[in-house]
Amino acid sequence: MKIIKLNLKKRSYNIVAGSHIIGLLGGYIKKLNIGRDAYIITNAAIKSRYARVLERTLRGSGFESRLKLIPDTEKSKSINIAASIIADLASYDKKRKVFIIALGGGVVGDVAGFVASIYKRGIPYIQIPTTLLAQVDSAIGGKTAVDLAQGKNLVGAFYQPRLVFSDLSFLETLDLKQIQSGLAEAIKYGIIKDAQLFSYLERNLGDCLALKTAPLEFIVKRCSYLKAKIVERDEREEKGIRTILNFGHTIGHAIEAAGDFKRYNHGQAIALGMLVACEMSKRLSFIQDNILARIEKLVKAAGLPAKINKISLAKILKAHYRDKKFLGKKNRFVLIRDIGKTKIVENIPLALIKEAIASRSS
Amino acid sequence: MKIIKLNLKKRSYNIVAGSHIIGLLGGYIKKLNIGRDAYIITNAAIKSRYARVLERTLRGSGFESRLKLIPDTEKSKSINIAASIIADLASYDKKRKVFIIALGGGVVGDVAGFVASIYKRGIPYIQIPTTLLAQVDSAIGGKTAVDLAQGKNLVGAFYQPRLVFSDLSFLETLDLKQIQSGLAEAIKYGIIKDAQLFSYLERNLGDCLALKTAPLEFIVKRCSYLKAKIVERDEREEKGIRTILNFGHTIGHAIEAAGDFKRYNHGQAIALGMLVACEMSKRLSFIQDNILARIEKLVKAAGLPAKINKISLAKILKAHYRDKKFLGKKNRFVLIRDIGKTKIVENIPLALIKEAIASRSS
Repeated sequence: MKIIKLNLKKRSYNIVAGSHIIGLLGGYIKKLNIGRDAYIITNAAIKSRYARVLERTLRGSGFESRLKLIPDTEKSKSINIAASIIADLASYDKKRKVFIIALGGGVVGDVAGFVASIYKRGIPYIQIPTTLLAQVDSAIGGKTAVDLAQGKNLVGAFYQPRLVFSDLSFLETLDLKQIQSGLAEAIKYGIIKDAQLFSYLERNLGDCLALKTAPLEFIVKRCSYLKAKIVERDEREEKGIRTILNFGHTIGHAIEAAGDFKRYNHGQAIALGMLVACEMSKRLSFIQDNILARIEKLVKAAGLPAKINKISLAKILKAHYRDKKFLGKKNRFVLIRDIGKTKIVENIPLALIKEAIASRSS
Repeated sequence: MKIIKLNLKKRSYNIVAGSHIIGLLGGYIKKLNIGRDAYIITNAAIKSRYARVLERTLRGSGFESRLKLIPDTEKSKSINIAASIIADLASYDKKRKVFIIALGGGVVGDVAGFVASIYKRGIPYIQIPTTLLAQVDSAIGGKTAVDLAQGKNLVGAFYQPRLVFSDLSFLETLDLKQIQSGLAEAIKYGIIKDAQLFSYLERNLGDCLALKTAPLEFIVKRCSYLKAKIVERDEREEKGIRTILNFGHTIGHAIEAAGDFKRYNHGQAIALGMLVACEMSKRLSFIQDNILARIEKLVKAAGLPAKINKISLAKILKAHYRDKKFLGKKNRFVLIRDIGKTKIVENIPLALIKEAIASRSS
C-alpha cells in the first residue's frame, strides 16, 4: 500500500492505493473528522459488487450510510441528475452531518464531486475510484463537472476531495474496454511527463491487459504521484502547468462528441486525440517520425484505435469549436517535443489541425 | 465616491460606491482584464430602467454585451433557471471570452453568481446591485446560491465577484418595501458590529425612507466596509467570524419559508428573526429589556414588522429544522450581548427557542 500526499495547504489530501485495502477505509475516513453520515453515490453494477463490503467497513468505524444509485452512462453527468441527487441528499441530510462518497468510475466521480461542491456551498467528499481510468486520473485533482448539450464538462467546479482511496482489487472485474480506457490515460502520463513510465508500459502492457495486479498497481501509484505533483503546482489550471493533462483531450473530446459518445468511449477518443496531437507535433517539427511510431505502436498494443473511423472531419471540427478550452478566439494545444516533454502552442492554423485529423482518419 | 478594498489575496476586489457613477463602470471593468464580452443577467423591470445606460458605458469601453432576462421573483433562484441561463450563455460564448454582470437585487445576484461559479468551472463576474439590500449586503462577499424545495440557498458556492459597483442613483426608483428590506440588513450591521451605525440609523431613518441620497450613501458605504472586513477574516464561514452575519437569519429564513415566501419578504422576515434572536438573548440574560426595546423601536420606525402574524410556531420550527446552518444535531444561534456585540451560542434548548418565537407571535 502506498500513500501519496497531494499538497494544497488547507485542501491537502491523501491518495491511498493498494490491493484489497477497502477494509481499512473506515479508519481513514474517521481520521478526517468530516461527519458520521456517508451518502454513497454509485451505480447498480458497482453496488452489487462492492456496496456490501463498503458499508461493512463504514459500519465498523461507526458511520451510517445511504446508497444513491445513478444510471451507468455518460448521460448521468447532467444538471438534472445532479439536481435529483441533491433533492434526495437534502432529504437524508436533516439534522445530520453528511459527507459524500463517490464509488465508481469517472461519471460517478464527476457528478458526485460536483454535487459535493454545490450542496450547502460545499460538503466533504471522498473518491473511491473503481475503474483504472478513475484510479490513474479522474478521481484525483478535484475537477468535477457535468455535461451540457453544448459540450462536455461545461458546468462544474474545482473542488478537492478529502481522500482518494484506490483499491486495486476493484479492477479485477473490469472488462477489457475499461482497462484499455485506463491505459489510454496511463499512456498519456508517460507521454507528457514520464519517459520511464512509457517504457514500463511498452514492456508490461500485456500483463496489464491480463489484469495482473502488480503492473496495474505500479501504474496507478505512478500516475497518482504524477497527477498529484502537477495539481499541486497549478490547482485551477491557471499557470499552464495542469494544462498538459489535456494532452490528447482537445481533439479527443471533439471526437467523442462527434461520435455522439457512442462510437468511441473516452479512452479510445483520447488515444485518437493523442495521435492527432502527435501528428501536429510532427508537422511542426517538434518530433520525428520515430516518436510518433513508438506512441502509435503502444496505443495499438493496448487495443486502442489509431485511426478515426466513420466520423467526418467537419463534425469533429464543429464539436471542437464548442470546447471550453478555447480562450477567446485563440486555439491552444498541448503538443510534445519528445516522450515525457510537452509544449503548449497557441493559434495553430486551421489547415494544420485539419491535416492532422485527416491523417488519422480512415 | 468611495472605493473599499476587500482583501482576499488573489481573490481581492473593490467595492465602488457612489451616486451617478454608472458611466465610469466601463473603465473599471477594463482594468480587470477579464474579457470583452459581457453577459448581463437582469430582469425586465431593471432592464427598462438601466440596461441602456449600462450598455452605453460598456460599449464606450469596447465591450460587447448580451442581456439575459430572468423573472423578478424568488422562484428565479432555482437550479432550473440556472440551467437555462447556462444553456443560453453557452450559445453566446462560442469563441468569446465572457464575463457575467449581475444587474439587480439579491435574486439576480445570487443566481448570476452561482452561474458564474459553475460555468466552465468558474468565469469572472461583476455585481451591480440595484437594491439597497443588495448594496449593503448580498452583493458583497461571494455567497451565491439557489433554493431547493427542501430549503433556501441549499445549493451554491463561495465565489467572489471581481468588482461590486453600487450606484446610489439606482435606489431612487425603489419602492418603500425594498428600502425597508435593505434597512433591515443595515440595522443588522448596526446591531452586530457597529453601535455608531445603529445610532446613525436611529437619527436618520426618516431621511432614508424618504430616499435621500446622503444617508443612503452613508449606510451603503458603512455596511460595505463592515461586510468587507468580516468576509476578509472568514471568507468561507469556517471560523465563526462571518457567522455573525447570520444574525436574525436562522429564524428569519424559517419565517420566510413558513410563510411560503409570500407573507414576508426577506427584509421583513429578517427583522422578525432579529427580534426573536433578541428575545433569546434577553432570556439568557445577555441583554436587558432596554436593548431589546431600542432595537424594536428602530425596526418599527423602519416600517418593518415586530410581530409574526398568522404563521404557526409549528410551521416555523419545521422550516427551521431544514436550515442548512444546522451542523450535525447541534443548533447554533447568533445572539447579542449589546448593540454592536454578538455571541454565538450552540445547543439552545428547544423550549427557549419556542418561547422566543411565541413571544414575537401575535
